Amino acid sequence: MDLDRLLGRIVDEVAPLRGAGSAADYIPALARVDPGRFGIAIADLDGRVRGAGEWEAPFSVQSISKVFTLALVLAGGDDESLWRRVGREPSGNAFNSLVQLEHERGIPRNPFINAGALTVTDELVSLAGDATGELLAFLRAESGNPDLRVDEEVAASEAAHGDRNLALTHFMASYGNMRNPVATVLDQYVRQCSIEMSCRDLVRSGLFLAARGERRDGSELVTRRQAKRINAIMLTCGTYDAAGDFAYRVGIPGKSGVGGGILAIVPGRCAVAVWSPGLDERGNSVAGVAALDHFTTLTGWSVF
Amino acid sequence: MDLDRLLGRIVDEVAPLRGAGSAADYIPALARVDPGRFGIAIADLDGRVRGAGEWEAPFSVQSISKVFTLALVLAGGDDESLWRRVGREPSGNAFNSLVQLEHERGIPRNPFINAGALTVTDELVSLAGDATGELLAFLRAESGNPDLRVDEEVAASEAAHGDRNLALTHFMASYGNMRNPVATVLDQYVRQCSIEMSCRDLVRSGLFLAARGERRDGSELVTRRQAKRINAIMLTCGTYDAAGDFAYRVGIPGKSGVGGGILAIVPGRCAVAVWSPGLDERGNSVAGVAALDHFTTLTGWSVF
Amino acid sequence: MDLDRLLGRIVDEVAPLRGAGSAADYIPALARVDPGRFGIAIADLDGRVRGAGEWEAPFSVQSISKVFTLALVLAGGDDESLWRRVGREPSGNAFNSLVQLEHERGIPRNPFINAGALTVTDELVSLAGDATGELLAFLRAESGNPDLRVDEEVAASEAAHGDRNLALTHFMASYGNMRNPVATVLDQYVRQCSIEMSCRDLVRSGLFLAARGERRDGSELVTRRQAKRINAIMLTCGTYDAAGDFAYRVGIPGKSGVGGGILAIVPGRCAVAVWSPGLDERGNSVAGVAALDHFTTLTGWSVF
Amino acid sequence: MDLDRLLGRIVDEVAPLRGAGSAADYIPALARVDPGRFGIAIADLDGRVRGAGEWEAPFSVQSISKVFTLALVLAGGDDESLWRRVGREPSGNAFNSLVQLEHERGIPRNPFINAGALTVTDELVSLAGDATGELLAFLRAESGNPDLRVDEEVAASEAAHGDRNLALTHFMASYGNMRNPVATVLDQYVRQCSIEMSCRDLVRSGLFLAARGERRDGSELVTRRQAKRINAIMLTCGTYDAAGDFAYRVGIPGKSGVGGGILAIVPGRCAVAVWSPGLDERGNSVAGVAALDHFTTLTGWSVF
Repeated sequence: MDLDRLLGRIVDEVAPLRGAGSAADYIPALARVDPGRFGIAIADLDGRVRGAGEWEAPFSVQSISKVFTLALVLAGGDDESLWRRVGREPSGNAFNSLVQLEHERGIPRNPFINAGALTVTDELVSLAGDATGELLAFLRAESGNPDLRVDEEVAASEAAHGDRNLALTHFMASYGNMRNPVATVLDQYVRQCSIEMSCRDLVRSGLFLAARGERRDGSELVTRRQAKRINAIMLTCGTYDAAGDFAYRVGIPGKSGVGGGILAIVPGRCAVAVWSPGLDERGNSVAGVAALDHFTTLTGWSVF
Repeated sequence: MDLDRLLGRIVDEVAPLRGAGSAADYIPALARVDPGRFGIAIADLDGRVRGAGEWEAPFSVQSISKVFTLALVLAGGDDESLWRRVGREPSGNAFNSLVQLEHERGIPRNPFINAGALTVTDELVSLAGDATGELLAFLRAESGNPDLRVDEEVAASEAAHGDRNLALTHFMASYGNMRNPVATVLDQYVRQCSIEMSCRDLVRSGLFLAARGERRDGSELVTRRQAKRINAIMLTCGTYDAAGDFAYRVGIPGKSGVGGGILAIVPGRCAVAVWSPGLDERGNSVAGVAALDHFTTLTGWSVF
Repeated sequence: MDLDRLLGRIVDEVAPLRGAGSAADYIPALARVDPGRFGIAIADLDGRVRGAGEWEAPFSVQSISKVFTLALVLAGGDDESLWRRVGREPSGNAFNSLVQLEHERGIPRNPFINAGALTVTDELVSLAGDATGELLAFLRAESGNPDLRVDEEVAASEAAHGDRNLALTHFMASYGNMRNPVATVLDQYVRQCSIEMSCRDLVRSGLFLAARGERRDGSELVTRRQAKRINAIMLTCGTYDAAGDFAYRVGIPGKSGVGGGILAIVPGRCAVAVWSPGLDERGNSVAGVAALDHFTTLTGWSVF
Repeated sequence: MDLDRLLGRIVDEVAPLRGAGSAADYIPALARVDPGRFGIAIADLDGRVRGAGEWEAPFSVQSISKVFTLALVLAGGDDESLWRRVGREPSGNAFNSLVQLEHERGIPRNPFINAGALTVTDELVSLAGDATGELLAFLRAESGNPDLRVDEEVAASEAAHGDRNLALTHFMASYGNMRNPVATVLDQYVRQCSIEMSCRDLVRSGLFLAARGERRDGSELVTRRQAKRINAIMLTCGTYDAAGDFAYRVGIPGKSGVGGGILAIVPGRCAVAVWSPGLDERGNSVAGVAALDHFTTLTGWSVF
């Protein structure tokens, strides 16, 4: 199927869902966004990018950043060291729950719940010092967009509403599972989440996961094996406590953020990004999930 | 790679792991099996089956039966009706835990933990009356093995140690989530788990999941969409509380049983079954998981 | 203060609360009772009994029976044996929760939650065979009411809605914490709960707890130390997940039942019983708790 | 019985237990204390104090301070305001657990678990600004010991190991249940816990709870009703997750601290304090609990 027609058809199909759900309300800067906005982009292995709707509009990536920080840590560090500090299992709980963290004595279930992402950021701080700077450098290079930046208003707003994440981080520290000062890790974590990117930026930056770990310049960011494994974690843990349902309906690895974006990967084929700020009760974009559902149905590109 | 050589190489690779772990000890009839036994079989889309090791030796399928009962319910019934009674999310808990079941008011997380499988059996009893008879008829037809049967000693042993499953079933009944009498559902459930099959039988019987829902005679058991969705649930929920790790290491849908068997699917390519009774602490076959890890590494047939 | 005037005043004080809350609705035979009924009785150490309101009307004692079965087991058996099977700590959970039972591997928190009472009944079955017969013989002798009996309609109704208790009992059995057949223990448990008694019957039967363990005929049912200890368990665990609040407001040991009755003890002074079927959301009688609150306020007989 | 002989006898009885258990090890300054030390003191309603063993040796009061801060908040504030922020039920969990706090959305179960005490300190900060100064002024006046002070080494050590309490406080703040800055509340909390007192100081300071709320100078700190209620909370929640067992064995209200001290109250009679640093696995002094068990057995002064 012609990709431009495909994207156009998806835009039509999800039109009735635009505005369904509600924008994340715990951060004023996010709550102001119109929940009816929508964009979609796709990048194939040759690096060609197509889009439809507001595919060039920047939005807050939020938890989608967790995929990139994980990749940078795996690229720069020692897999075994990381996996001693964080698991690889779906959580069966809300993304910011402390219950399971206590049950498992300070070891988060996976790198995509908040607690796990905080340990990944902690690792990246140990590796790179300025973790956000490292992340931005990577994203700017891959996306070809030198203007990518942290939205300082969102970062300040998140820092001001950071009690839950502070609780998670101090809790892990109480079990000895935090290397850098809590304040440093939180600051870096919040800044990473507050980066603004468009669907176009996202598919370019995430394409290495469809391309066996290769960056756009042909160099290896992570090994083929590591790329597969990141995809596996996205599939089992990437959409909060709806990962099973996402795998069931959409059938490809994806990572969502409360800004309304989702980055999804068809291994060996392409990266897809969608954005629509209206969220369902589990924190995933209503129109975004529906768009990806149509995408895999129309293309037959489910991994299953 | 030549498949016979591949299977031979896998047998060699896992040899040091045979006997690691321990056979399920809560059922005397299972505890007696030598944990060092090992077999592997593969069936391609043309129906050709190859095997190595003890690939024709029958063993107790236990929870692998949950894949087939789910497929039969989806084939014969109404998807929506089932999914109101059972979720599709990984559990984050042991396979026989009651904690989450109470938290979620009698709705099991997914069809592959015991509680969820008991609701699937309950549905199959409503559809077919003699659920085990229905299941055996299907398995005999697909495997081409008319001798498939329930191991009555294992069934009696499980029934005699059935307090945990009785607790789960009565608990769901207390929330109104059980249609048939508890004793009937338990009896059928136990008998399904006690069916004996070889790796050869399993790959033949499970091939429809690699073949878009088509049975060996070309008829449709489930739709292509349903087949994909069963594969998705196997990937996210098929190996107890190790599903994330299995996806990470092996990268294809799989369903394990405490008899030491695992049925795995490479969508569009083949079905693979392994068997070795030594289990790790999460209830999955040590040598079996390792064999599948080698299999996807050597073939590159991960879905990611 | 004159006790008759005291009881009259309490009847006046609680009048506005009669009918507040709602009768237990999970058993049809209990749901039919008018929630506005009210009775109160008091027995002093000399055995004199006074009452007001419907103090001679029989009602379903439900969980109040747990006090008497515990006393009979302590009287007839071996304390240490019982306390290996059941704890003495408040539960912090609903009376029929399975969560904590799993966390603590089949050992109930205390003898007054359902799971704990089921182990006590199991002990009494081991001691006496016909546990309910033993209990009725004791209650008839102490109350002086030879007509005390099981309400067979209530017992049948409870047995028909017994899935939760069956789940609890099978669950404990799965941990090896059940000596007699589940069906036997459940049957005895349900029959004990379905005994009908009036406030007058209850204060006479419970007076031994105010009288250092002595029965009305002067013989020792339990030792002085054991009587104190039963009172301690009533205070910390006797009113479901409201025990802390009951101690705070009322300040004496008490055991409630979903039939709307509460038996309370002023050690060294008297036994008090109240009855009013309207329950609060934690299962305790609204007017009954209020009456006991007035009672200890007006008399100053809190243990604190 | 003559009190001096009584105390002497208790010292003899518990001698074999001195040194059992182990001193709190998470704070170096506490871990250095010899676990075999022991002291006991008693103050009657006339204010006479007797003691035995090291009854005049100062030790770290730790959680015993929670009784006094609660009393000061009730004395100075508005009961209803406090009880909207913290419950009065036993917790059924470890003293520093976050599990129940999440389940109950940031409202701690009672004022004597850490989370609840942090809300009480937060209230006292709102009432008095310098909460620790207010507390010390009260304790100095009641004990007649103007030298009472915070052990700054212990306070610094606790602050340096404060991640768990920081997690609890930020967690409550994330639910809107914290009025003052987290850092302020933590600082005051840690300083209150680090006050050093002897058994003599403690019984004098706690005597108002046995004396219906009256201070030593005859003025009312809290009402008679409030005093009873504090005693009720001590009985149901004062000894961590061993409150039921403490009520069962000892039978009077008591509040323990990980410094090895316990303050206990016989309402209408006396206050008793014991100290011995060896703790059992639930954080209560082994010899201290045993001493109080002997005390109530020998005197018959259980509230039950």
